[in-house]
Amino acid sequence: MTKIHVDKWDKFYASRVQTLRPSAIRDLMSVSSRPDIISLAGGFPHTRDFPFDKLKEIINHVIKNSGPASLQYGPTEGFEELKRHIKNIMAEENTKAKIENILITTGATQALDLVTKTFVDPGDALILEAPSYSGAITTFVSYQAEIVQIPIDDDGLITDKLQTRIEEIRESGKSIKFLYTIPNFHNPAGVTMSSKRRTDLIRIANEQDLMIIEDNPYGLLRFEGKKLPTLKSMDTQNRVLYLGTLSKILSAGMRLGWVVAPTAILAKLIFGKQATDLCSNSFTQYIALEYFKHGIWKEYVSSVIKIYRERCATMQEALKEFFPEESTWTKPKGGFFLWATVPPYLDTTEMLAESIREEKVAFIPGQGFFAEKGGVNAMRLAFSYCDSEQIYEGIKRIGKVIKRQSELYRSLQI
Amino acid sequence: MTKIHVDKWDKFYASRVQTLRPSAIRDLMSVSSRPDIISLAGGFPHTRDFPFDKLKEIINHVIKNSGPASLQYGPTEGFEELKRHIKNIMAEENTKAKIENILITTGATQALDLVTKTFVDPGDALILEAPSYSGAITTFVSYQAEIVQIPIDDDGLITDKLQTRIEEIRESGKSIKFLYTIPNFHNPAGVTMSSKRRTDLIRIANEQDLMIIEDNPYGLLRFEGKKLPTLKSMDTQNRVLYLGTLSKILSAGMRLGWVVAPTAILAKLIFGKQATDLCSNSFTQYIALEYFKHGIWKEYVSSVIKIYRERCATMQEALKEFFPEESTWTKPKGGFFLWATVPPYLDTTEMLAESIREEKVAFIPGQGFFAEKGGVNAMRLAFSYCDSEQIYEGIKRIGKVIKRQSELYRSLQI
Repeated sequence: MTKIHVDKWDKFYASRVQTLRPSAIRDLMSVSSRPDIISLAGGFPHTRDFPFDKLKEIINHVIKNSGPASLQYGPTEGFEELKRHIKNIMAEENTKAKIENILITTGATQALDLVTKTFVDPGDALILEAPSYSGAITTFVSYQAEIVQIPIDDDGLITDKLQTRIEEIRESGKSIKFLYTIPNFHNPAGVTMSSKRRTDLIRIANEQDLMIIEDNPYGLLRFEGKKLPTLKSMDTQNRVLYLGTLSKILSAGMRLGWVVAPTAILAKLIFGKQATDLCSNSFTQYIALEYFKHGIWKEYVSSVIKIYRERCATMQEALKEFFPEESTWTKPKGGFFLWATVPPYLDTTEMLAESIREEKVAFIPGQGFFAEKGGVNAMRLAFSYCDSEQIYEGIKRIGKVIKRQSELYRSLQI
Repeated sequence: MTKIHVDKWDKFYASRVQTLRPSAIRDLMSVSSRPDIISLAGGFPHTRDFPFDKLKEIINHVIKNSGPASLQYGPTEGFEELKRHIKNIMAEENTKAKIENILITTGATQALDLVTKTFVDPGDALILEAPSYSGAITTFVSYQAEIVQIPIDDDGLITDKLQTRIEEIRESGKSIKFLYTIPNFHNPAGVTMSSKRRTDLIRIANEQDLMIIEDNPYGLLRFEGKKLPTLKSMDTQNRVLYLGTLSKILSAGMRLGWVVAPTAILAKLIFGKQATDLCSNSFTQYIALEYFKHGIWKEYVSSVIKIYRERCATMQEALKEFFPEESTWTKPKGGFFLWATVPPYLDTTEMLAESIREEKVAFIPGQGFFAEKGGVNAMRLAFSYCDSEQIYEGIKRIGKVIKRQSELYRSLQI
């Protein structure tokens, strides 16, 4: 083979290798799809109880009424009728959006990629929560952004720390392109930003002229407590770009998400999309627009909420039973994940290999959710995919690994 | 609204505005989807005669056997079983590929985007045919590549001119990242690279250590003449990256394409895909892998080839009848397009507005296929989408516009 230089990604690789290599996450994903492994790793929605008969009906309808168009290229910005449904989906969280400000994307990941591609030059600073979604970190780092992470607690982003950090970053001469946040049922932390913190965040953003990317994949999956306003609905200055997805309320496999952005920005995102994948999937857009016509989508969401509530409860019971006393974990009111912190002498990245090999159970080590060092003794546990029995068994097995590693640690201390 | 700076794309915009703005192409696409317009503009495949009953059957089968998985996230690199079918599809053109060298992408456009993202730094030179696919130009320009276009004739890329240009570019201190070519049934030119030119190109690439991106969306749609070897099949040094798509043999709306690349490069492309849209559409991948199990896909391709052959013949007859004598056009042996050149005193970009307004017919002006000035008196005409009757009528109407504009030109000469 000829020498072909592919060094452009090396910097990216290097920066991620310091923490958890994305390829390691990929390996983890493929390991955790093995049937003999209980995987609490991937953020996979529960799809087994989808109303498949209804889906067949819908698809037969699409084929009958829009067959040739569903197999054809579509407009880059997405089908207008689907955008109308998206507007209604957002209204469920009391959030207004104009049809002409919506761009349908190939999953919310693409929306994030396009926003980053549009705004970020190498070396620009982005503010994230600590921890933050590993996929977002991967996307940001691929554009050579500098990631600044601000701690969260049970009320979400600690806004008191935000102001100072913004000033520090700007004093260092860096440009802050945006703050990226997942206010509802945070990935990976499972916490939800309180009403007060939301108000604070919007106020600081206004004062500091800060753009916010609000990523809200789990907003409709609340199984406890009262609905909170989205940042987008509180925004009076057009500084919140909103990302949504159908991955958690219809299907992740159909790769449909969206972004709501002011007209001038949207035009550039559309331009970027055209250069990236031309248009979103016509076939699954047709299925989605037919699906959201019917009340059935709300019934389905209610049914999966029930399942997630139960699984989350089981996970917490199991954690109480099998994790050592010094452990803590968040108490999610919705979504897919909780964040568990184990005793500080443990390293969850080291634990993972043993967990898979010896106990056939997988989770994601905390380090994957930090651009720099962080989360060494933490882990993300997904309760969305495995059933309660598996969750109970999985936590029990991780508990065994923790016990063994703790004993090893103590024996070395003597 | 707050002032948010979105200047990153402006350079990109500016460079495309010099020729034909991509937004103008988008507008053109939306105009040409109006039912009252005969559109010879878009490269839309014929989808009306798809075996929809078979499609229903396939989908019922997918839902029954893989329902939950088809709605779920899939592996970033794509489903292995679909890759096996892709291997067979490539074998139809006597081209070998290993499963592990295939990455399934969201259409071939994404493959092109990922390859560019991986290899191109701002200012790097890329060699293209003149004219070349407008979508590829858009993607390349979005990474601030410098595009060098080399003329083609009825035998494709004029390889005699390639050697000198490579030397000139390198002498100017620029790095050439790759040559991008569409050897079969070229978009937009409709010509096919001859066997001799293919041999020459591979020889020059070997001598000059040049990487080749072979884009082959139409290869299986030959309606005349003998199959020619792909560049990939002639490559002994792993310097050809091959792009394929299901858009023209199954469905463009299902957004499935692929790239074949050496292992080291593929790893980086997968990495890029993960940061861009996580994974390709699981639902349509399942449909595709079920579809390609059956011989029916070959029957379908045969049936559309027949249709394209007939439409192409009709277009040529109409051109003979309605275009002025000084016009020329290419004689495609497959694919979707032909390239017509009208008298040099005409500007097809100017003609387009009148064509749409007065005659309700659309085409793509030649300038869209050049990064710099070029193709002013040329146009791309798609025979893939409209039926023969519409094609005949459409060419007749463009003929009228040409006639009026020619008369206007002559009247100004006096």
